[in-house]
Amino acid sequence: MNDQIIIDGLQYINWNRERFERTRDSGITTVHVTIAYWENFREVIANISQWQRHFDNNADLIMPVRSAADVLQAKQSGKLGIVFGFQNCSPIEDDISLIKVLHDLGARIMQLSYNNQSLLATGCYEENDPGITRFGKQAIKEMNRVGMLIDMSHSAERSTLEAIELSERPIAITHANPTFFHDALRNKSDRVLQALGESGGMLGFSMYPFHLKNGADCTLQEFCQMIGQTVEIMGIDHLGIGSDMCEGWGYETLEWMRSGRWTFAADYGEGTADNKEWPRQPDWFQGSQDIMNIAEGLAAEGFTQQDIDKLMGRNWLRFFEQSFEPLG
Amino acid sequence: MNDQIIIDGLQYINWNRERFERTRDSGITTVHVTIAYWENFREVIANISQWQRHFDNNADLIMPVRSAADVLQAKQSGKLGIVFGFQNCSPIEDDISLIKVLHDLGARIMQLSYNNQSLLATGCYEENDPGITRFGKQAIKEMNRVGMLIDMSHSAERSTLEAIELSERPIAITHANPTFFHDALRNKSDRVLQALGESGGMLGFSMYPFHLKNGADCTLQEFCQMIGQTVEIMGIDHLGIGSDMCEGWGYETLEWMRSGRWTFAADYGEGTADNKEWPRQPDWFQGSQDIMNIAEGLAAEGFTQQDIDKLMGRNWLRFFEQSFEPLG
Repeated sequence: MNDQIIIDGLQYINWNRERFERTRDSGITTVHVTIAYWENFREVIANISQWQRHFDNNADLIMPVRSAADVLQAKQSGKLGIVFGFQNCSPIEDDISLIKVLHDLGARIMQLSYNNQSLLATGCYEENDPGITRFGKQAIKEMNRVGMLIDMSHSAERSTLEAIELSERPIAITHANPTFFHDALRNKSDRVLQALGESGGMLGFSMYPFHLKNGADCTLQEFCQMIGQTVEIMGIDHLGIGSDMCEGWGYETLEWMRSGRWTFAADYGEGTADNKEWPRQPDWFQGSQDIMNIAEGLAAEGFTQQDIDKLMGRNWLRFFEQSFEPLG
Repeated sequence: MNDQIIIDGLQYINWNRERFERTRDSGITTVHVTIAYWENFREVIANISQWQRHFDNNADLIMPVRSAADVLQAKQSGKLGIVFGFQNCSPIEDDISLIKVLHDLGARIMQLSYNNQSLLATGCYEENDPGITRFGKQAIKEMNRVGMLIDMSHSAERSTLEAIELSERPIAITHANPTFFHDALRNKSDRVLQALGESGGMLGFSMYPFHLKNGADCTLQEFCQMIGQTVEIMGIDHLGIGSDMCEGWGYETLEWMRSGRWTFAADYGEGTADNKEWPRQPDWFQGSQDIMNIAEGLAAEGFTQQDIDKLMGRNWLRFFEQSFEPLG
């Protein structure tokens, strides 16, 4: 067993035993899994219960990760570590107390908004972004206190900059790319990347085609060159992978992610009415089994082994260590 | 029995038989009652069930009002009519379908936000107001369709102007005063009043001390002169009473209204840490029993009986007729 720690900063997989096995065998040590898009508190509890059944039925393959130490234990025992996260603040509904309740139940990462305006912050598809709300300012304090990592992957620019500023602890953008690489509402400006890096935060690079230059036709070389350019903005210590790999879902799941319960009219998110289905993945990243292609691509670009190790997981590991415990 | 229709566009009373009796005997024909501030769907259903017990136990005194025709029936039968309304969109949670569900259960008026940013619109205590959200635009369409009146009493300026613009049906500000009278975050600018009047909407004048010039020391004459000035901006047909009378509640209720579940830190709303309790009412409006003082004050200011009738209830009656039915 090598001592390489590989962490994927976000996946959204329709998990089953075969997929757990394939992901563990890929070399990935720990993955941040999505257990809420629009789910309210009660619904996310059902998702946590479903995960409890996964842990019971696949105890030889997977284990929950609630701390950086758990990542190391997963590595030692040859299991895939699972970090629970929400892509929205919907699980806390309107109740600040639920942040600690959900941390107690194992959640470690929460986005403040998902595409739309939330009670805490603005999503990247809204026309206007007023920044962090009154409730949002209180929620950030509480997330800092209990050790719930703030994730702004689907948030709008001003809200993201304010979250970086207001949060006492560094925040993350677990899965997005720079807009200099591909100018999409979901990607992040140089200004956001600079502020994120300076504050000690983390960016996870996404392999989701809507975030890539030329979509699924983006080459591994272009992807790794983009990582190199981002290192120049943020430094090598603030970057990781957040593949945003989606696998095993039908169109209804994509509709749920895009439209939740907030609209009767169809919303196509990053797609269009003519191109509304799940996108094709680049050939060099069809799924977790291809994760080592990234490390090879980085080596081909001249990254040192130490820097590759940081990008592939060591940075996330250090960041989890800083982020998941309550403030002393 | 005279044929005067008196409608109070908003009260928040800890209702019991004695208060139903006193309100009915005051001459008030129908009152818009608040059944949600921060309540979610399930909680508002409990409040509706509580009202069902009120209707059962006080069938000789009160009746539900779901249409303008019900107001006339309440008048004829000598009962107090009750219109259900929400001061926030919390009862629909994140689900646009719940607008029709709650209309089916008797709700007729819903504010798009209460002081804070909501999923639909911005509240008047937020620092920034981005206007109506993506979900808000969809919700306005659905409220228009089913006949749920949009109320922007506690919303911020831009959101209010956009709601007036986006809504196909006129909207209301059920309880607030002009800022030219008293400059408070809860009161409304000339620009809002003009847009509201031009669009056929309604303003209900508030007797809540935080909305009055000199608070509880405001005189009846000053209040009625303010109504006269507002007629010049909006016209006589777009104005009514929305007393915002609060009665029978302890401090815990005020804390709930101000802080909901969104903050651990105390929020004093329109009050301050030194002056946080329920405010004293002006001597000319201690409660519903004083409603006819307003009519007398208007007469003393030279309003005609016809205009007084409009202001005291006829305008609300006409507006309810336009607002509460589904679009054909």
